[in-house]
Amino acid sequence: MEVPVAGTARTSKRRGQTVAARSALKVVKGSSPAPKPEAARESAAAGDDTEITALGLKRAPLNPAMEAYFAKCEEKLGFVPNVLEAYAFDMAKLEPFVAMYNDLMLAPSGLSKLEREMIAVAVSAHNRCYYCLVAHGAAVRQLSGDPVLGELMVMNYRAARLNKRHRAMLDFAVKLTAEPWLVEEPDRAALRRAGFSERDIWDIAAVAGFFNMSNRVASATDMRPNSVYHAQAR
Amino acid sequence: MEVPVAGTARTSKRRGQTVAARSALKVVKGSSPAPKPEAARESAAAGDDTEITALGLKRAPLNPAMEAYFAKCEEKLGFVPNVLEAYAFDMAKLEPFVAMYNDLMLAPSGLSKLEREMIAVAVSAHNRCYYCLVAHGAAVRQLSGDPVLGELMVMNYRAARLNKRHRAMLDFAVKLTAEPWLVEEPDRAALRRAGFSERDIWDIAAVAGFFNMSNRVASATDMRPNSVYHAQAR
Amino acid sequence: MEVPVAGTARTSKRRGQTVAARSALKVVKGSSPAPKPEAARESAAAGDDTEITALGLKRAPLNPAMEAYFAKCEEKLGFVPNVLEAYAFDMAKLEPFVAMYNDLMLAPSGLSKLEREMIAVAVSAHNRCYYCLVAHGAAVRQLSGDPVLGELMVMNYRAARLNKRHRAMLDFAVKLTAEPWLVEEPDRAALRRAGFSERDIWDIAAVAGFFNMSNRVASATDMRPNSVYHAQAR
Amino acid sequence: MEVPVAGTARTSKRRGQTVAARSALKVVKGSSPAPKPEAARESAAAGDDTEITALGLKRAPLNPAMEAYFAKCEEKLGFVPNVLEAYAFDMAKLEPFVAMYNDLMLAPSGLSKLEREMIAVAVSAHNRCYYCLVAHGAAVRQLSGDPVLGELMVMNYRAARLNKRHRAMLDFAVKLTAEPWLVEEPDRAALRRAGFSERDIWDIAAVAGFFNMSNRVASATDMRPNSVYHAQAR
Amino acid sequence: MEVPVAGTARTSKRRGQTVAARSALKVVKGSSPAPKPEAARESAAAGDDTEITALGLKRAPLNPAMEAYFAKCEEKLGFVPNVLEAYAFDMAKLEPFVAMYNDLMLAPSGLSKLEREMIAVAVSAHNRCYYCLVAHGAAVRQLSGDPVLGELMVMNYRAARLNKRHRAMLDFAVKLTAEPWLVEEPDRAALRRAGFSERDIWDIAAVAGFFNMSNRVASATDMRPNSVYHAQAR
Amino acid sequence: MEVPVAGTARTSKRRGQTVAARSALKVVKGSSPAPKPEAARESAAAGDDTEITALGLKRAPLNPAMEAYFAKCEEKLGFVPNVLEAYAFDMAKLEPFVAMYNDLMLAPSGLSKLEREMIAVAVSAHNRCYYCLVAHGAAVRQLSGDPVLGELMVMNYRAARLNKRHRAMLDFAVKLTAEPWLVEEPDRAALRRAGFSERDIWDIAAVAGFFNMSNRVASATDMRPNSVYHAQAR
Repeated sequence: MEVPVAGTARTSKRRGQTVAARSALKVVKGSSPAPKPEAARESAAAGDDTEITALGLKRAPLNPAMEAYFAKCEEKLGFVPNVLEAYAFDMAKLEPFVAMYNDLMLAPSGLSKLEREMIAVAVSAHNRCYYCLVAHGAAVRQLSGDPVLGELMVMNYRAARLNKRHRAMLDFAVKLTAEPWLVEEPDRAALRRAGFSERDIWDIAAVAGFFNMSNRVASATDMRPNSVYHAQAR
Repeated sequence: MEVPVAGTARTSKRRGQTVAARSALKVVKGSSPAPKPEAARESAAAGDDTEITALGLKRAPLNPAMEAYFAKCEEKLGFVPNVLEAYAFDMAKLEPFVAMYNDLMLAPSGLSKLEREMIAVAVSAHNRCYYCLVAHGAAVRQLSGDPVLGELMVMNYRAARLNKRHRAMLDFAVKLTAEPWLVEEPDRAALRRAGFSERDIWDIAAVAGFFNMSNRVASATDMRPNSVYHAQAR
Repeated sequence: MEVPVAGTARTSKRRGQTVAARSALKVVKGSSPAPKPEAARESAAAGDDTEITALGLKRAPLNPAMEAYFAKCEEKLGFVPNVLEAYAFDMAKLEPFVAMYNDLMLAPSGLSKLEREMIAVAVSAHNRCYYCLVAHGAAVRQLSGDPVLGELMVMNYRAARLNKRHRAMLDFAVKLTAEPWLVEEPDRAALRRAGFSERDIWDIAAVAGFFNMSNRVASATDMRPNSVYHAQAR
Repeated sequence: MEVPVAGTARTSKRRGQTVAARSALKVVKGSSPAPKPEAARESAAAGDDTEITALGLKRAPLNPAMEAYFAKCEEKLGFVPNVLEAYAFDMAKLEPFVAMYNDLMLAPSGLSKLEREMIAVAVSAHNRCYYCLVAHGAAVRQLSGDPVLGELMVMNYRAARLNKRHRAMLDFAVKLTAEPWLVEEPDRAALRRAGFSERDIWDIAAVAGFFNMSNRVASATDMRPNSVYHAQAR
Repeated sequence: MEVPVAGTARTSKRRGQTVAARSALKVVKGSSPAPKPEAARESAAAGDDTEITALGLKRAPLNPAMEAYFAKCEEKLGFVPNVLEAYAFDMAKLEPFVAMYNDLMLAPSGLSKLEREMIAVAVSAHNRCYYCLVAHGAAVRQLSGDPVLGELMVMNYRAARLNKRHRAMLDFAVKLTAEPWLVEEPDRAALRRAGFSERDIWDIAAVAGFFNMSNRVASATDMRPNSVYHAQAR
Repeated sequence: MEVPVAGTARTSKRRGQTVAARSALKVVKGSSPAPKPEAARESAAAGDDTEITALGLKRAPLNPAMEAYFAKCEEKLGFVPNVLEAYAFDMAKLEPFVAMYNDLMLAPSGLSKLEREMIAVAVSAHNRCYYCLVAHGAAVRQLSGDPVLGELMVMNYRAARLNKRHRAMLDFAVKLTAEPWLVEEPDRAALRRAGFSERDIWDIAAVAGFFNMSNRVASATDMRPNSVYHAQAR
């Protein structure tokens, strides 16, 4: 079983340190004429690593499969993504979520892993989902080796210098997100013209659909991303 | 493993017969002064039972678990819901979908099965998803014994005579569907005031999220509902 | 003077019975393993046949023309549509409404009666008008002999298998409903290309316009449809 | 039978002259240092008085009632409003339109004629309907003796200094125009709190509904207002 | 330094008189059978000439440059536009505003002054900005010698009889106003096809941008236009 | 004359190096088991430092004031922000832009510089403006010493842990951006309750307005941010 690509140990060298801690450090190091942060304000992300959702749901005991999976995350990423912690109040919810996620984002597909992450972020940008933009923005930066690509997926994918394949893919995913009732045969035909197979079209739809789900679970529960993501692959 | 509640054998007596077939029959039986359907037009749902999606994906061999599940559907419902046929090109996609669906819609929860189906339809109405409105509209009719409740979830849930609990539940689910970025603590507080627990809030979010996913997969692929649903529980 | 086509005596055999009554009956008849409706909840359409609007307006005495018209409705449909009861507080309002309705929907036109009802429902679906979706959804089912066509007009007309004429007609009517300020010459040209005459274009606009009026009067007053419509022509 | 209040002979002294003609005149009279209009451009409203709609529908012979009505318009207003000319291709359409219009806008009501015209313009402003904004904007100017009130109804009624009654009335009418599916009991309650009776609520809804119809017929057909309206009651 | 073109002394003969004053006058002069304005209501624009914004900001002493500029406005227009009074609480804000405005609207450009004012009004119509619609609507009327062009920019520029150049220009400006994130190379290409140079494209964008700023400052502060504008160049 | 706070020499140590260059470097250094970027794809921001806009406008000779200002930018920031290069085709446009910008963002105000930058980014996030999100996102990170605050302003300010003052300020600025026609006295009252003075309200409106202008000029011209911003203050 694979683990999410975002946040491998190699790139998150500072993973044991929260963003708030790093910020404090930076302030101390700032030389005198630099603009100073306003005094004594709390981080905008205060508590992100400890209060993962706004719901007081208690973590259930992990079953062996999930225990192994969480251990693998710790080993490979250095942390367990908060979304998994959030679902871990009930194994019957956690397991299918993990299975679906891993199949969609990591299994063999006509779409590269980066392409799937680009869809994830462009969809999450439409829905303005803090959790998913942070976690999957980091994945785009990491998989592409192009930090600005991650930023552009968050800000406005239309402003990125994309090839025709990627533009068609994101146009479909975002229209499907914004106005699914308007998606019709010409939209599928545009994907085929850009070189996507029938199976690829399913995969684009499934990834876009999945993040339309995750965005809403995250927004409904005020799910907070692990702060370690923020600095990854910048 | 349970099967979807919609379409039990008892209520779908005519399940072996497509809507088109019934329509033809009705025309033949119509007595002379009745308004006649316009001649020789094809049904608006022609092919719904045979061309399940617009993608030419071939069904994969079912693995034993899924074979048993499909058999159970046939036995209990009299048919296999088309969404399952659509996902059956790849067991790695079908299995987590079935597991997630069954947990969300059928497992024990503070929300009744009917309440979960009401969310399904109200969300699908916002997204104008043909497949989900037909399949889950039938479920609401069946579970409630109130056919008009099914209609109202499709048309405008605000026009239904709902108790405060149901109204709060649907207001949350539909806001989460339409503008997830605006859902905040006061929205959760409104659910708590209506008597929902923290876990219930998760379940409302998860069901609403799931149909935001399914609606998009269905719209992206032009997924067609089994025609047997249309006449169920009217 | 004609009467609305929806609800002829032939198809509404159960016209003397409200949906609530039938629902109760169905529950009694339900065999044991069927899913049971949740206990003791009121119908979502409770009172639809008795409290027609949220306004306490008293019916005025019908003048002879309207008395004859109401009698004709009773004779042909088995009931007086609630919208007529709603307008009957003032003959000066009822009469032009009836005259305009009958001309638009029933008089000779290049559009068939079914086409006019399809516009009525597609427009009312955009506006999510409970009254008009129920009453005119029934008319589409009845006139077409294709119950699913009625459902599709309510849910998303774009998902229906429509010929080019009908698609062009509904695209115009729904754009005119959603964003009338954007309707321009190319929109009219598209109708002409689909075979519509100048007079037909007027009729499409007039029917779409009429339901944009009726939808709003109905929504403003919480107008409730006769419950007999729900089961017609299923 | 009354005629529309806009455009009485007294206020439209230049009624025999089109706006284009007046514009030309003004240019000739302009003294030298005044900014000059750009040369040889056609009026933005060229043809408004001759090509009333974009449809080539021929005027039918007026029946006696309508002939009398048109004569009355000529006598009282100095012209026949173009909307009547547009409907005059078919007496079966013209008569109910006139009957409905006159009842709604001119018959006794708890709403003053000015209030009804204010609703007409605020609704037409939302729908950006050229015809109705011109014709009914003139009516508001005329009935109120406050030309700026007419402008404000066109531009943004929220910027006008309105009393609470008028603000509540327009808030209801514009919400009903923009999102009729959201109008519910609290919206009616707000009108009652502002002093409106049940019958008044009907009238607000009916006038708002009527202009939602007229706006769409006008936009669908590119209906052009009589140019004489523009200068009335400035 | 130039002054805004709207409101030169020649065309605003009644400039010393507020609209409210003229309204009162008109009522007195109205001959008996004319429709009477409703008694004793305040003008919808009451106070526009005295309470320029909803903020209690005190005018700062004008510096010499601004004193000269205000004097020039008085001399040429007969009044100081209220927007200048509104900014005059701080010379550091007033001066760049005046400099930017004068460059954009009055300096040499591939766009005529009328074209720039047409953009101003079409943008302000989208944003429904009372101040800008009044002040710049007057400018369009004046510069074009076509009063209806001014009305059409306020109501719906798509209904105006425009040449291709003007239509392309306004389509770009309004799309940039409504959905700036969707403006891309094909939008610029459409302007080039309509004959605009690269510099012209900048100017269209800059004018549209400027009014998107001004509209918001005006709406945020409830800025009121000088009442003299209303009657100009009708 | 001050220069923009974003990008002081101290924090942009790698300022001479484009993001693309750093990306390439990172790939070379990547140890073997790290996920590899997809081969040979161009950066999503390729050309951002050389082709600043999509318009072929040539830089004009800087006048002495602007030459000094650009030199000051180079000295303090290590680069000239691209927006200044974009405006530098015409000194008559560059100078008022610089004057207005510096007054709004850097002059004394009841709003801190960070607060003004937060408004800039929240407004630009609504408008999805690549240039402004990058340049001012960096400024928020730098001024606050809280990199995640910058991210949250880009993604969804509602998800940030903000005090009441900041939340009220951003709610006003974003409503003014999205629906300026709905901003009224209660919106100003909410700012006053949060402790803002009349002058502060002006400043919030003016900053929000300014970025509604800049966002549109940037989107219309495809303005590209200096790539050095991306890595600042992470």
